[in-house]
Order: sequence, then C-alpha cells, then structure tokens
Amino acid sequence: MSIRLDSNNPELYRELLDKYDTWMLDCDGVLWHGDRLIDGTVQVLEILRSHRKRVLFVTNNATKSRPNYKKKFDGLGIEAHVDEVFGSAYAAAVYLSSVLNFPNDKRVYVIGMSGLEDELRSEGVSFIGGTDPADNTLSAPGEIPPDSSVGAVLIGLDTSINYTKLSRAFRYLHSNPECFFLATNQDSTFPSEKGLLPGAGAILAPLVTALGPNRPVTAIGKPSSLMLDAIKAKHNFDPKRTIMVGDRLNTDIQFGKSGGLATLLVLTGITSEDDLTGPNPSPIVPDYVTASIGDLRNAV
Amino acid sequence: MSIRLDSNNPELYRELLDKYDTWMLDCDGVLWHGDRLIDGTVQVLEILRSHRKRVLFVTNNATKSRPNYKKKFDGLGIEAHVDEVFGSAYAAAVYLSSVLNFPNDKRVYVIGMSGLEDELRSEGVSFIGGTDPADNTLSAPGEIPPDSSVGAVLIGLDTSINYTKLSRAFRYLHSNPECFFLATNQDSTFPSEKGLLPGAGAILAPLVTALGPNRPVTAIGKPSSLMLDAIKAKHNFDPKRTIMVGDRLNTDIQFGKSGGLATLLVLTGITSEDDLTGPNPSPIVPDYVTASIGDLRNAV
Repeated sequence: MSIRLDSNNPELYRELLDKYDTWMLDCDGVLWHGDRLIDGTVQVLEILRSHRKRVLFVTNNATKSRPNYKKKFDGLGIEAHVDEVFGSAYAAAVYLSSVLNFPNDKRVYVIGMSGLEDELRSEGVSFIGGTDPADNTLSAPGEIPPDSSVGAVLIGLDTSINYTKLSRAFRYLHSNPECFFLATNQDSTFPSEKGLLPGAGAILAPLVTALGPNRPVTAIGKPSSLMLDAIKAKHNFDPKRTIMVGDRLNTDIQFGKSGGLATLLVLTGITSEDDLTGPNPSPIVPDYVTASIGDLRNAV
Repeated sequence: MSIRLDSNNPELYRELLDKYDTWMLDCDGVLWHGDRLIDGTVQVLEILRSHRKRVLFVTNNATKSRPNYKKKFDGLGIEAHVDEVFGSAYAAAVYLSSVLNFPNDKRVYVIGMSGLEDELRSEGVSFIGGTDPADNTLSAPGEIPPDSSVGAVLIGLDTSINYTKLSRAFRYLHSNPECFFLATNQDSTFPSEKGLLPGAGAILAPLVTALGPNRPVTAIGKPSSLMLDAIKAKHNFDPKRTIMVGDRLNTDIQFGKSGGLATLLVLTGITSEDDLTGPNPSPIVPDYVTASIGDLRNAV
C-alpha cells in the first residue's frame, strides 16, 4: 500500500524532506507539460536546494542533449546545472563509452535526433546515420551492404524515422551477430504538446519484430538499472536516502524500486487515480503518492 | 512427419497431381526470387493447367494490385489471369467491403502503397493517407485532431513509412475505440532483390506497441483464415482436394493447415532443411516437402 500525502497532513511532506538527501526527478509530466510549468515547481526546487538536497533530473527523453535541457530549464526559469541532468541519450553514450568500452575503430549506426548525436560526440563515440541527409529520405533504400565497422545500432525517438533507416539498422544487426542492439529507452508513447504520440519504444518496434526473439534489445533508460549505473558513474549517493519522483509506474516507479530507491508518484502525468485504485490496479506500487510536485510546498 | 518427395520416386508427384484439384501457390520464394523465375516454374504451371487444375496465386505482398501482379506474371512469361490472383491488398479490400460492410460515409486511413489504394478503389472503399503527398513527409507532424469519419486504419508494407503516418494512425485508433485496426499481413520480413528487408509486420509494430495489448490488430493475409474466407467469397473449391504450396512455415503452411488444406513446402525460400530437421524443428509440419516447385515436372 502506498502512503497518500495531502495538505491535511503537512507533517508527512516534512518527513520526506528529512528522510531523503538525493531527489531524482522525472521532467515531462512532473515538472512541466511541454512548455508549461506545473504549478509550484520553481518553489519546490528552491525548497530542495535551500535544504541542501542533491537534485538530479532523470529523463527518458533522448531527443535533447544535456546542454539542450539546460536551455529548456533556463527558459522556464528553473535553476539547473548541466551535470544534474541525466537524459537517456547521455546515459546511452556513457554506457557505450564506459560500460561497453566501445572500440575506437567501430561506429554506431544511429536512429535518433541531434541531441543523441551531441551526447555521443561528447563521449567520443563515432557514429553514422542520425541526421545525415543521406539517411533522411523517403525514397526506397538502395543496396545496403553489410558493414562490419558498425559495432552497434542505437535507437532513440526519431521523428524522421523512415524505411531507409530501418532497413540499414536491420541489415547491420541481421548480418552481424556481434553488433550491439541498443535503445535509449522503450517508452511506447510520450505526452507531447500535441497530445500522446508514438515514443522510442514504437520507433524501435519494427526492428524488434523483424529481428525476432533471439535478438533482444538492451534499453538504457528507465526502468533499466543501466540508467542508474550511469548516474552512479558520475555521482555518489546513498540509495537508502534517495527518492525517485515520477508520473509513470512502469518507468519511473519501477526504476526506483529496482534500484532500491524510495518512490513518489505524482498524478500530473500519465498515471491516473484509476490506475492505482480501479478494477485493474497496477502491480507496481509506489511508496508515496501525491497529486502534484507542487504539494511539496507543504513541507515548509 | 512430412512425406519427402524427390526424383527417385516420381510416382509420389503423380499422386499429388491426381489428389488435388485446386493448387494455391505462394509467389515470392516459390515461383520466383524478385525478377528471376525459379527453374521449372513455367513448365509446372503448364502441367497443372493441362491437367485442368484450378490455379490460384495466394500472396501476402500488399504493395501490388491484381493488375500489377498480372503485369509481373506477363513480364516473366507466366500465364495468369487477374481473378486467379489473391494478394493480401485485395483480400483486405474484400474484407472491408464484404465482411465488415464498411459504411459509405466512413473512410480508411491507409499506411501502404499505390497497389493497396487501387484494390480499395476497386472495392469502392473510401480512403485517405497512403500516397497523399501531405502524408509523405519527414517533417514532424502538426496538430492531428481526432476524426470520427475515419472508421478503420489499414496498414500494409510501405517503404515511405514516416512519423506523420504513424502519428495519424495512432491518433485515429487511440481516440476512437470503434475504429477498426487492420493489417494486410504480419510478415516480419520479406525477401527482396536487395536481401531480407523489414516487412508489413515491422511497419505495423510501432502501432501495436504504442496502442498496447488491449487493442489487437486484425491481419488479413496468411496465416489468417480471413484470407481463405476472401478466396471462398470468389471461388468454389473443396478444401479436401486443395493443396497450398509455400516456402514459409508460419504463413503459407500454417494457412493451409488452419484451413484444412493439404500443404507442400518448397525449400527455395525462407525455410531451410535445418528448420525442419535441426535441433529446434518448427512445430508447424507440412504434409509434403520438396526441394523446388520445379520438381513437379517429375509428375509427367
């Protein structure tokens, strides 16, 4: 059973603030919707910082690099530092460079956008595809020879997805069992300003289908513990004194639970009250539930 | 156990010819590879016709209309008639018009190519999307309002697949529980002249993923019995005296077995000897196996 927090019991918010030193916050659906801040976000972040909490922004959005994210925070009037941001694009680049020790003479074939390319560049990982105009075409693909220099295929959300990109990624993976099959994250949808749209998990699905069950993908983003490994590689924190705040049970809350963190669900995003207490409640149960991040203003 | 046929026992081929009046033939991997005829195809079709067999070409390729297919047969020097061809594009159009009695005031949102559009037109089904230039763009999609006039989304192989098409299809299906979710077929890959490429099942996969398990797709092509229903709507035949010849266990052979037809596997396409007798043999067992369609020349 989750502990429900609301303004009738402000002491529960104060307890949370005392108990947890590191606050990992999802962004979309928690701090903002698109370009609109959720009420109270700025004040709550100020409260956390004034209590000397470590704040980390942990997001599966792989279309933005950390500097892109910093600009987004600046534009919304939120204090944030580049090294506080962990997007799944950055986590994927760190996984390639630090965990796989991806060889210098190999290249990554990228399905994804410029933010993902920026993060690969920042970690010194060579890549092809991505925003290359030759791959961004609606013409049917020409001959695609196998290429043993392609040591990994990495897939993130790409609104320029097309058959040439899918066919190249398929050829490299199908012709070379050694080629790593990686994804920034597997979110099936994401909430955009234009409503719910297909997410990275959907962009990835054609390859999962075409390659079949013997070629599983390694997804780096939440709920994978690989995302937490990437954070651990850069920061020291005590999981027992860390709380993950998110709006999505199967990514944010599952990620926190798998990593031994406390979990706080907010209801400003994907998850509704019905997902918790309706006829088919989710098996993933957060430690705490509150209506909105803004409720943490009750702590002071 | 399958019965193995080879030239050492020509009487087995004669028995097949006696036993079956209707011969349903898959095309790619059975009659030809791309634009190259498989040895003996022309002679075997002449043998079948000279023995007054009914010949039907039953293919999951949904990029071609029946007249397109007729041209392909003509170009390869094979006698064929438009009403002998059952592509999954035609079967999907017949399913909409004759089985679902798709209302006149509703439209189908199409992900697919001109052959699929031609077959919908031939059955009098209204549609949008498809080859419309507005849908064939790599720009990120604009606002996509729900549209209750879209009564079905139909997906086939589309080498111009893009994020606008996927987002529109997702919006229509997600916003309207009454909207039919249809696919011409679910082949995960298909053998092209340029090697194996992602198939209709891969093009469809982003929507299956984004919509989740509560919104299953209805696929018309093999192995679905809906394909056989479409054939039955146009031809009389006795399933007990009908044989399905194909190269793929999970489509052609499964289709024949589900429909109560005899099945003959040829090894000129997807299925290898190892799939039958290797360490992990398929649970789908054809009645007969021969190396190639051309072997049926042994029957005379």
